[in-house]
Amino acid sequence: MAGIAERKVRDLARAITLVENGGPDGLELLRRLAERARSDAERPRSHVVGITGSPGVGKSTMTAALITAFRARGQSVAVVAVDPSSPFSGGALLGDRIRMQSHSSDENVFIRSMASRGHLGGLAAAAGHVLRVLDAAGFDVVVVETVGVGQSEVEVAAAADTTIVMLAPGMGDGIQAAKAGILEIGDLFVVNKADREGAQTTARDLRQMISLATSQTDDVVAAWTPPVLTAIASTDTGIDDIVAAIADHRAWALDHGELERRRLARAREEVIATALGMVRSRIEAASSMSAFEDSVSAVAHGEADVHGAAEALVDEMGSGTGS
Amino acid sequence: MAGIAERKVRDLARAITLVENGGPDGLELLRRLAERARSDAERPRSHVVGITGSPGVGKSTMTAALITAFRARGQSVAVVAVDPSSPFSGGALLGDRIRMQSHSSDENVFIRSMASRGHLGGLAAAAGHVLRVLDAAGFDVVVVETVGVGQSEVEVAAAADTTIVMLAPGMGDGIQAAKAGILEIGDLFVVNKADREGAQTTARDLRQMISLATSQTDDVVAAWTPPVLTAIASTDTGIDDIVAAIADHRAWALDHGELERRRLARAREEVIATALGMVRSRIEAASSMSAFEDSVSAVAHGEADVHGAAEALVDEMGSGTGS
Repeated sequence: MAGIAERKVRDLARAITLVENGGPDGLELLRRLAERARSDAERPRSHVVGITGSPGVGKSTMTAALITAFRARGQSVAVVAVDPSSPFSGGALLGDRIRMQSHSSDENVFIRSMASRGHLGGLAAAAGHVLRVLDAAGFDVVVVETVGVGQSEVEVAAAADTTIVMLAPGMGDGIQAAKAGILEIGDLFVVNKADREGAQTTARDLRQMISLATSQTDDVVAAWTPPVLTAIASTDTGIDDIVAAIADHRAWALDHGELERRRLARAREEVIATALGMVRSRIEAASSMSAFEDSVSAVAHGEADVHGAAEALVDEMGSGTGS
Repeated sequence: MAGIAERKVRDLARAITLVENGGPDGLELLRRLAERARSDAERPRSHVVGITGSPGVGKSTMTAALITAFRARGQSVAVVAVDPSSPFSGGALLGDRIRMQSHSSDENVFIRSMASRGHLGGLAAAAGHVLRVLDAAGFDVVVVETVGVGQSEVEVAAAADTTIVMLAPGMGDGIQAAKAGILEIGDLFVVNKADREGAQTTARDLRQMISLATSQTDDVVAAWTPPVLTAIASTDTGIDDIVAAIADHRAWALDHGELERRRLARAREEVIATALGMVRSRIEAASSMSAFEDSVSAVAHGEADVHGAAEALVDEMGSGTGS
């Protein structure tokens, strides 16, 4: 645990690898972080900002611009870039790293890529563990950047304290956003590359869709209406407005109990996902037996039903195959 | 079960809704389909073709072109379009539907969208159940179209008998494909929109990357080298070559035991995912208790460790909360 609170890059990186891997050392570290947190209940917590959007909208450039803006305000920033690479190609991408390298010598900036696959208990559990370490390290802001297509990735961004959905003009209209299933999750929408043709149209369409969605909500007083901003991340244009909107949303979420509600939901999902990961290990242990292989073969040939085979597997596991 | 073998659209649609929902009627239907399959082990099986790629590469247009091509060869075709919309916006998108409407009066064509979220046991389990119904309906070809970003969606396409990865020029180069983590899963690559600038460059880059990957494989004799084709789906250009390449891959996969291996892997994943879905239901039942809510609250405030809470939950479930 040494070095985490001091945000030493090597110690942080090692701690994150430990909790990502989900082995006994990682579990022990998480236990110790929780213990320390119990003795210091008043410590400030990181504000988790999710950034999501289709490939090519400029998420990494926006993240780099936000880092600069937060640093200019004296805030420390950690970034978790969830990378949909397969386990084979392994994690961080050179391009993203290079783009963010201007901050590499600043000890109050920490950047980490994590693959979206191959985590025990799934991406939600693994991301939750990583956020816990960064929170313990005392970063003021933690940015979680994920590609906005795909179930797990969107869920991770949506679980943030403030979720930014990015779009770009010319990538299709609102239907594309609806298709990506990201309209409902945004606390704040940013149309990036606003110097391109169609940016204002995209922003207007979005505002209309949001106003339509908001007008269907009964709870008018408490509701947050997601602002739609335009920006050119590559030239730092519009970034100050985004930082201000994040602060607005944070203040609103704190006032209305939304921050607490999201943190509970996140913890709940993290605990359930971790529990399922434990069960999955047990199931896979049980499934190495030849009786299971026989039943899989029957299912593959359409001659046995999936649920019967699954039930047998769950029963097998419950009868004490253990972890 | 009436009407499924006759491919009556309404009966098929109802059967698929039943198995997607995962309720007792769906389970019963899957049991009966397996029973019938046991009594007819020699029946032909559907060839499952996965199509994946980033938003905007033209997957739906390609699917429509392939339907036409397969129909011209006298083959019946079912399409499952996995739509990453949220559960809120609910399933099929008007745009895709309209684009495919030219086949709507043909009883040997069946098209169905399914949402990628909100399925018991996850997308893999739900997609597996739907494929089972379409297989029982005797479709020669089943096309599964998914967006090629995101863990679950890619896994579903990758589990097909033949997986087509689509790219388009000008959507970034090979790095974009590597980023999407879809390079390893293609049995066949198609650079669509080949009339656009950069199509040949994209195809050449892909061939180089594939040849690099293939040269690292020891098993030279048995290995399949994924062809890289170019096409313009919107004008039916290059579709015949794709259909031929699918047939080639199918013949190769049959000869080398790859088809059987994939079907076993798919069944195995389907059984495990279904088992986990059952366990998740039990966990969620157990988690409604106030002891669990207290531990979630402690986790949310960083004061209890996730694994301890997860372990308690699994123990709780194992001690007979039952389903």
